[in-house]
Amino acid sequence: MAAESSILIGQKPVMNYVLATVIQFNQGAKRVSLKARGRAISKAVDAAEIVRTRFLPGQVDISAVKIGSEKVGEPGKERVVSTIEIVLERK
Amino acid sequence: MAAESSILIGQKPVMNYVLATVIQFNQGAKRVSLKARGRAISKAVDAAEIVRTRFLPGQVDISAVKIGSEKVGEPGKERVVSTIEIVLERK
Repeated sequence: MAAESSILIGQKPVMNYVLATVIQFNQGAKRVSLKARGRAISKAVDAAEIVRTRFLPGQVDISAVKIGSEKVGEPGKERVVSTIEIVLERK
Repeated sequence: MAAESSILIGQKPVMNYVLATVIQFNQGAKRVSLKARGRAISKAVDAAEIVRTRFLPGQVDISAVKIGSEKVGEPGKERVVSTIEIVLERK
């Protein structure tokens, strides 16, 4: 099991991503990154907060939050979307 | 004009918050915090990125991004919402 793990937040219910994150920590991950784009950004924050406060309280910290922009779409139809990366780290 | 300023992101179009932020910087603010809760979190990230990359490129940095949780609603009907605070700082 790698010490680092990354989960892409998409259109599934938030609890799917919460459980995926908890499983990664239970399998020995030291750090789990939640990555999201566009409207899924709110869901990434929700998932991180649910893990931190309800599933692994006192056991994980948010060690970094980075925001940025990315171009998506085919050439000629590109648009810019915002991105977020939230790093959860076992204490 | 205060060196610090704070803008609460709500249900208006993202460009309203972008312009409010740019005005704060043009009036001399050193730091502007964008705060949002729940679904408005994605919009706060969009607003910060639009200011940073399109309106004031090379002039402001994202100096901090904090996420957290807050209880909202009347007693007995409380629920928890996620929050974000993005601090933009003039270079």
